[in-house]
Amino acid sequence: VNAARLGLKSAIIASCGMDGLGDFIVDKLKSDYVDTSHINRTSGLHTSIILVSKSMDTPDFTAYREADCVIPEDVVTDELLHLSKIYHTTCFALSKNPARTTILKGAQRASELGLQLSIDLNYSEKIWPDRIEAKKIITQYLSYNPLLKLSIDDCYRYFECHKTEEEIFSYFHSKGVSTICLTKGKDGVAVSDLEVGVLHQAALKIKDIKDVTGAGDAFWTGFLFARINNKSLLDSITIAQKLATIKLQNVGRLPDMISLKKVIEELD
Amino acid sequence: VNAARLGLKSAIIASCGMDGLGDFIVDKLKSDYVDTSHINRTSGLHTSIILVSKSMDTPDFTAYREADCVIPEDVVTDELLHLSKIYHTTCFALSKNPARTTILKGAQRASELGLQLSIDLNYSEKIWPDRIEAKKIITQYLSYNPLLKLSIDDCYRYFECHKTEEEIFSYFHSKGVSTICLTKGKDGVAVSDLEVGVLHQAALKIKDIKDVTGAGDAFWTGFLFARINNKSLLDSITIAQKLATIKLQNVGRLPDMISLKKVIEELD
Repeated sequence: VNAARLGLKSAIIASCGMDGLGDFIVDKLKSDYVDTSHINRTSGLHTSIILVSKSMDTPDFTAYREADCVIPEDVVTDELLHLSKIYHTTCFALSKNPARTTILKGAQRASELGLQLSIDLNYSEKIWPDRIEAKKIITQYLSYNPLLKLSIDDCYRYFECHKTEEEIFSYFHSKGVSTICLTKGKDGVAVSDLEVGVLHQAALKIKDIKDVTGAGDAFWTGFLFARINNKSLLDSITIAQKLATIKLQNVGRLPDMISLKKVIEELD
Repeated sequence: VNAARLGLKSAIIASCGMDGLGDFIVDKLKSDYVDTSHINRTSGLHTSIILVSKSMDTPDFTAYREADCVIPEDVVTDELLHLSKIYHTTCFALSKNPARTTILKGAQRASELGLQLSIDLNYSEKIWPDRIEAKKIITQYLSYNPLLKLSIDDCYRYFECHKTEEEIFSYFHSKGVSTICLTKGKDGVAVSDLEVGVLHQAALKIKDIKDVTGAGDAFWTGFLFARINNKSLLDSITIAQKLATIKLQNVGRLPDMISLKKVIEELD
């Protein structure tokens, strides 16, 4: 939805139930101009939901998982990949089969076709209790050199201990990742890129934080949007931060019909 | 909660997760003076939730069932039953083991100890797809002669076809039930009692229905409250209708600290 609101053509590969909530989600996505034709509807399972607590810090959540992982292998077609520039996933999506196998096979094919891959490494042991398996699967995905986004909280959950920025960057570079984007909340962003080196950017000043949920997603949409448009790494970070800032000042999703131009003008 | 708000001492036997929602529910029940000491907390499963659609008719719902059925057998103690006057359950609670076995064994013991039993026959094939099993289990519970509450919608779901009032009453009387309370929404209530015969009561006039969810529960709390207090069958129906009316005119639960006296005064 964020991508569509930035004027990008976006398609979602997902699975939800044959229930009212599934109808609602599909209708809502359609009204936001997201291509919903690749959503699988399951009749035996409900649409998965996640309850998120209200918080100014990292929100706590409870996941009721039913239909979400039922993504059949044949849904990622060459036809769809040929129309795409970015192939994005999350740890949540990778945590269960058959979705996992579908995503990994699609990633391999996307990579072969020259697409840029991307991953939000939002690992949580609550979603994926087998950490050894998780690291193995994620490492497989990382071997396709995706743009990698992760937060300080994600790192702590992934490694089960505090790591320095240097340790984090060298770990993921060693897995085959060229560009690592580490978000640190009020402490800004650190990006490590094999060509450009390490960049640090302070957080933008925000008067009134209204809702932190989705700020990471908004950030990453901005970053991917900028990369698709061949912006420099520094400009990409700035655009990402601006989108996250807009999100933090709004409850719910990004405002309707946002245009990147307006974002840049308003915040400059 | 309804019972506690009518000044009754009530205990709940249930199961929920070791999560924020479970904490919330237990705290909320405690603050409403419900005895929560018999609630089982499961660490591996989330608190079950049901999403209910907004509707003026029968609301649609989606159930995410996890911890609710994990009610161990030993939780229904003689000590607890000795403190009780009514032993109440629902089809939802009976639909899964181990809760089912716990409830049935408790029902047998409650009956032996001379308690009045009660059941809300809110059958739904969405909750309990094996209808043959459901009828068998429910019939077993009905053999303890509970006060039986069911709605016209429940009947339709239970029998999978339209039945006349006479057919409904004779079916449940044949299962061993003395008092059957059939609610018919705007068409009022019909009660069939082996001693008193069949009573019909029109619905109370309501200016502004705000929320139908929970009206059946409020009705039944009123009915059970009246029976505990040795009211006549006719008075029990009236009290039940008045509580349902209050509910229909309020969004959410019954108002705080309601007293039966006030209910009767206000609505007379």
